[in-house]
Amino acid sequence: MLEKLLSPDTIAVIGASRTPGKVGHEIVANLVNQGFEGSIIPINPTTDEILGLKCYPSLKESGATIDLSVIAVAQPRVADAIRDSLAAGAQAICVITAGFKETGREGAELEKQIAQQVRDGGARLLGPNCLGLLNTHRRMNASFAKEMPPPGGISVISQSGALCTAILDLAIARNMGLSKLISIGNKADLDERDLVEALADDPQTRVIVAYLESIESGKDFVRTAAETARTKPVVVFKSGTSSAGAKAASSHTGSLAGADIAYGAAFKRSGILRAPTFESLFDYATALAMQPLPRGKRVAIITNAGGPGIMAADAVEHSGLAVAALDQTIAGELAKMLPAAASVHNPIDVLGDADAQRYGAAVAAAQQDPGVDAIVVILTPQAMTQCVDTARAISENRGSKPVLVSFMGGKVVLPGREELLELGIPEYPSPERAVAALKAMCDYAEWKETPPRMVARFPVNRRRAERVLHRCLRTGQLQVGEAAAKDVMRAYNFNVPAGRIAATADDAAELAVKIGLPVAMKILSPDIVHKSDLGGVKLNLATPDEVRDAFDLMMLRIGKKMPDARLSGVYLEKMCPRGREVILGMTRDPQFGPMLMFGLGGIFVEIMKDVTFHLAPITAQEALEMLRSTKSYALLEGARGRGRVDIDAIANCLQRLSQLVTDFPQITEMDINPLIVGEVGTDPVVADARITLSDARSE
Amino acid sequence: MLEKLLSPDTIAVIGASRTPGKVGHEIVANLVNQGFEGSIIPINPTTDEILGLKCYPSLKESGATIDLSVIAVAQPRVADAIRDSLAAGAQAICVITAGFKETGREGAELEKQIAQQVRDGGARLLGPNCLGLLNTHRRMNASFAKEMPPPGGISVISQSGALCTAILDLAIARNMGLSKLISIGNKADLDERDLVEALADDPQTRVIVAYLESIESGKDFVRTAAETARTKPVVVFKSGTSSAGAKAASSHTGSLAGADIAYGAAFKRSGILRAPTFESLFDYATALAMQPLPRGKRVAIITNAGGPGIMAADAVEHSGLAVAALDQTIAGELAKMLPAAASVHNPIDVLGDADAQRYGAAVAAAQQDPGVDAIVVILTPQAMTQCVDTARAISENRGSKPVLVSFMGGKVVLPGREELLELGIPEYPSPERAVAALKAMCDYAEWKETPPRMVARFPVNRRRAERVLHRCLRTGQLQVGEAAAKDVMRAYNFNVPAGRIAATADDAAELAVKIGLPVAMKILSPDIVHKSDLGGVKLNLATPDEVRDAFDLMMLRIGKKMPDARLSGVYLEKMCPRGREVILGMTRDPQFGPMLMFGLGGIFVEIMKDVTFHLAPITAQEALEMLRSTKSYALLEGARGRGRVDIDAIANCLQRLSQLVTDFPQITEMDINPLIVGEVGTDPVVADARITLSDARSE
Repeated sequence: MLEKLLSPDTIAVIGASRTPGKVGHEIVANLVNQGFEGSIIPINPTTDEILGLKCYPSLKESGATIDLSVIAVAQPRVADAIRDSLAAGAQAICVITAGFKETGREGAELEKQIAQQVRDGGARLLGPNCLGLLNTHRRMNASFAKEMPPPGGISVISQSGALCTAILDLAIARNMGLSKLISIGNKADLDERDLVEALADDPQTRVIVAYLESIESGKDFVRTAAETARTKPVVVFKSGTSSAGAKAASSHTGSLAGADIAYGAAFKRSGILRAPTFESLFDYATALAMQPLPRGKRVAIITNAGGPGIMAADAVEHSGLAVAALDQTIAGELAKMLPAAASVHNPIDVLGDADAQRYGAAVAAAQQDPGVDAIVVILTPQAMTQCVDTARAISENRGSKPVLVSFMGGKVVLPGREELLELGIPEYPSPERAVAALKAMCDYAEWKETPPRMVARFPVNRRRAERVLHRCLRTGQLQVGEAAAKDVMRAYNFNVPAGRIAATADDAAELAVKIGLPVAMKILSPDIVHKSDLGGVKLNLATPDEVRDAFDLMMLRIGKKMPDARLSGVYLEKMCPRGREVILGMTRDPQFGPMLMFGLGGIFVEIMKDVTFHLAPITAQEALEMLRSTKSYALLEGARGRGRVDIDAIANCLQRLSQLVTDFPQITEMDINPLIVGEVGTDPVVADARITLSDARSE
Repeated sequence: MLEKLLSPDTIAVIGASRTPGKVGHEIVANLVNQGFEGSIIPINPTTDEILGLKCYPSLKESGATIDLSVIAVAQPRVADAIRDSLAAGAQAICVITAGFKETGREGAELEKQIAQQVRDGGARLLGPNCLGLLNTHRRMNASFAKEMPPPGGISVISQSGALCTAILDLAIARNMGLSKLISIGNKADLDERDLVEALADDPQTRVIVAYLESIESGKDFVRTAAETARTKPVVVFKSGTSSAGAKAASSHTGSLAGADIAYGAAFKRSGILRAPTFESLFDYATALAMQPLPRGKRVAIITNAGGPGIMAADAVEHSGLAVAALDQTIAGELAKMLPAAASVHNPIDVLGDADAQRYGAAVAAAQQDPGVDAIVVILTPQAMTQCVDTARAISENRGSKPVLVSFMGGKVVLPGREELLELGIPEYPSPERAVAALKAMCDYAEWKETPPRMVARFPVNRRRAERVLHRCLRTGQLQVGEAAAKDVMRAYNFNVPAGRIAATADDAAELAVKIGLPVAMKILSPDIVHKSDLGGVKLNLATPDEVRDAFDLMMLRIGKKMPDARLSGVYLEKMCPRGREVILGMTRDPQFGPMLMFGLGGIFVEIMKDVTFHLAPITAQEALEMLRSTKSYALLEGARGRGRVDIDAIANCLQRLSQLVTDFPQITEMDINPLIVGEVGTDPVVADARITLSDARSE
């Protein structure tokens, strides 16, 4: 679809210039000097030649049919340039020119207009306010960044144009092969999702790397990224993680979730590898582009120095990988090829005076060993060290397992580093960074192996829930009270204690007997959110008299404290059984939609913040994973002398909550707090629930 | 003291050789070729000239008086070489030769002998099995590593010789100035502590960096490091963090503490900056060597690209530093010097086309701003970027605040990077690494400001505790039972419920009345550790009859379950008041001595592992810090509707526990679990206590 953008045959540069330093000159110069294979058509009404190319006053007069138009004219002339480009058959238009959304409302309006203009013309727009794009495999540098990195398997999408130049400079210094580099600018039309989709189909792209500050259409992005990640890795560095944005939340779930948690949940769902730092972005990408994926987590470490071997082993264990136990026979054979003082335990120490051959033998042994899934090779520069030959020996013994290397040092090891990268072996300045990249590979390999997601649909009474919610919306009751919220829960087959609304003390006494004593009594008022703070909750009422007394006292006291509150009676309900308290919740992220939360109740949520999040809809497997990822999970399994609770039943509730919030986009936040969970075979009980609605929502 | 080692005037090389590649040749060659200022005396009986120097068959025949002797002869001849060196007046001897402790028992024995021999001769020994040492300021390379880094303020101590070569190579590539580099080898005599002490007094050393795999005499090291850190920073990378070593522990505290936790506690106490990775070791050291310490945490960020500015701001917030709010007047003045589109909010965006002057103006403004404590400058290579000039502009505007820089990219920015390092401005490949180094500076500055440690001594009955513990030791009772442990607690003025030992049911009933009903009853047996598991604990006995019944049933049932257990009666005790349960504990680390633990009781310790450790003896401030560093601390402050407990009283108990375990090195582990804490003004109650003794300990 975006082939004409990424790999055009004919490119027009509108606003081409003879003046070096001008953007319109640099783009033409980059295309010409870096050897673009296709045709270049510079457009400028004031000159007829630029860098040896014939220059036309307008596209029309050139008579050419073009694939891509790169526009670098002043902002007021962009619309005309787009019109001419479309007339010349352009299917892709890249607007370098700035002065749009980033400057304010007027610019934003203009930006919308040009995006519409391009789409109406059946084409797609990259930018505006971007650096342009590169395709190394066609030696196409349609940007105003001077450098052309070596060709390779990594394609980069960047929301920061300035960062592109740093990435290019880095790629050249590290001899890191890139395929495409695309500056997405203001994303008026094409955004990260479109480009991930296009790169997914690009045979020259092995790994997709993105620097993002925001994501435009969260749900679509998640879907596209997840599909893409099935075939090739997507590594994202997301900046702006600290500006959590204090949004007013009316639920526990809402107050614990932030934008960064939503991004984390979205990346997890999509199989996106999240790079924690800028350096790790390319550390991961290089490994993924150059090496096969590991089949497991067992790492062999090969080193010519003890200390760095320990460093690597530390990093392996801390990251959750395993130091492999080597096969005795293979290790024995290897030992014969090494000096007596060498160690053929893991880390394999080939000793300070190791030559290339020793390294080769050790790598070969690790490649053979059925107990090894991945290999980390470390070299320190000693008197006898053969950096370049060792690089070659490592490469010659490559096999089905990934090999990641750290040549520690600087000047002396540099030729070895360059040789490694040339040979397609990822190299890192420290063992820790090599291991971190390997861990990312393992994570991705594991995600790739997960079976397709199957979201169960439970039979529920959706109509009934709809009626309750619509009634609340009609009456402007956006904070759904407990009684109504519990009706919704019942409709989704949650186990809610029997409950009734009573308007008078006598009613209450009578209904309490019908429900079955003892009961709990809770004030019903659209004006009261924190019931217990006002004395609006009374538990364990055991006789009709106690119920009657409690009713009158509650009305009396709350009436005094809040004379203006509308008191519509009380909600009476059968006392809940005892059990473990957990909290299930949901908050709707503006980008990624409903996000579920799980945690153990009370202190675990409020003090320890021991909660996990997951995008809805959720599978059974994911629901269980949410439970297991909390630190306090052991308590559910029956630590400290208490029995195991019904864990599957909680996971089942999470899935039904997922279904509910997916069915009703009007629900913006909700808490089931607490859900009371008993031993295996019992159905968890919804002790309290709260729902927040939005009337403005349409999905 | 170690001046003759670090800065000798005359060096003998015993085992000097004419054969390039041989260690004994390389050392002489390094000394000669790299321009050592002093005299070099090569010793070799088979030649009379090496590299133009007169070579003597023996030190004696040279007639020289030497400062340092570097020995590279074969292992069996090392002792003779030492003898000759001592005779020639050597005050420092460096044994390069390997084949000692690292090869087994025999080698270890020999190593002990040569260490003794050197010390008996009034000298000190570096090594054996080491790389040697360098002093750049005297152009002395008394090692077999070929390279000489530029002179500078960082001195390196390394337990790995192989790593030294990587460090040297790195230093040269990064133009990182070193002062001394010392390979400590097997540490037969001189260890990390001695060298830290020597470097503390070395005026050319601004920062001490150490790569350590172990620490020899933990407590002495902590003392020396803490003294040194008052005057100059000590940065340590400790490897071997994952080999936690499953030691059998008889207390909660023991099972939660590991060797790595002990190292962490020791570093914290000493003011040592712990580098989490190999790269961070030099990232931190470079910043500390080159820049003044920040006076606070407020960071100004200056950038020519938005994205990297966000990265830096993220890193600042995540690391606990603060993005400074800029002074309006100064920012206004700066704005006049920048284009209209520039941002003078923090991050200050000088725009993609910024020249050196704009950077200079922004740095000058941040240096002036009273609300800024530190400055991070970021540059990406754009068309107009002046890397080298920008480096100079940054340097010219230096002031009292630290400036850390990241020139992002590779080839194009390299000259700028080199210029920065040349000018003494630390430079990092990513904003995140610059911020991490700044955070280390802030941590160190904060530690340096802490007032001198004052450990309070509480009036206690030490003799009484001693009597109880000696009785246990005499009777071989290394697991001190509850009754005796509580006697020890009482002697240290802990609030222990009144309790008595009863041997019969009638005794028990009578004593219970004396103590005051209700009481708790616990079985007394040297054979039973987990009392409650066996039904050996009965609470809330309210009448003499209940006491009598409980006694008989306990004896009957435990007698049946464990017929061989010696049952010496029961321990009766007044029921504890209700309150928050916390755990105080101690485990004695083989290196660093007693290490205190604090945590909230029950699930917080067992499931959430929410505990903190600190080396004893502890100050009041440190005790409070231990409490505050737990996640569950909020519960002590009175979260979730419960009142605040007496936090100072817990800190006081921690200090008395600290005093107890410092007074009695026989105590190897102990738990006060739970300590029951009530509201402010109440004295916490020791509900249970356990002490483990060792008879072999002598400190």
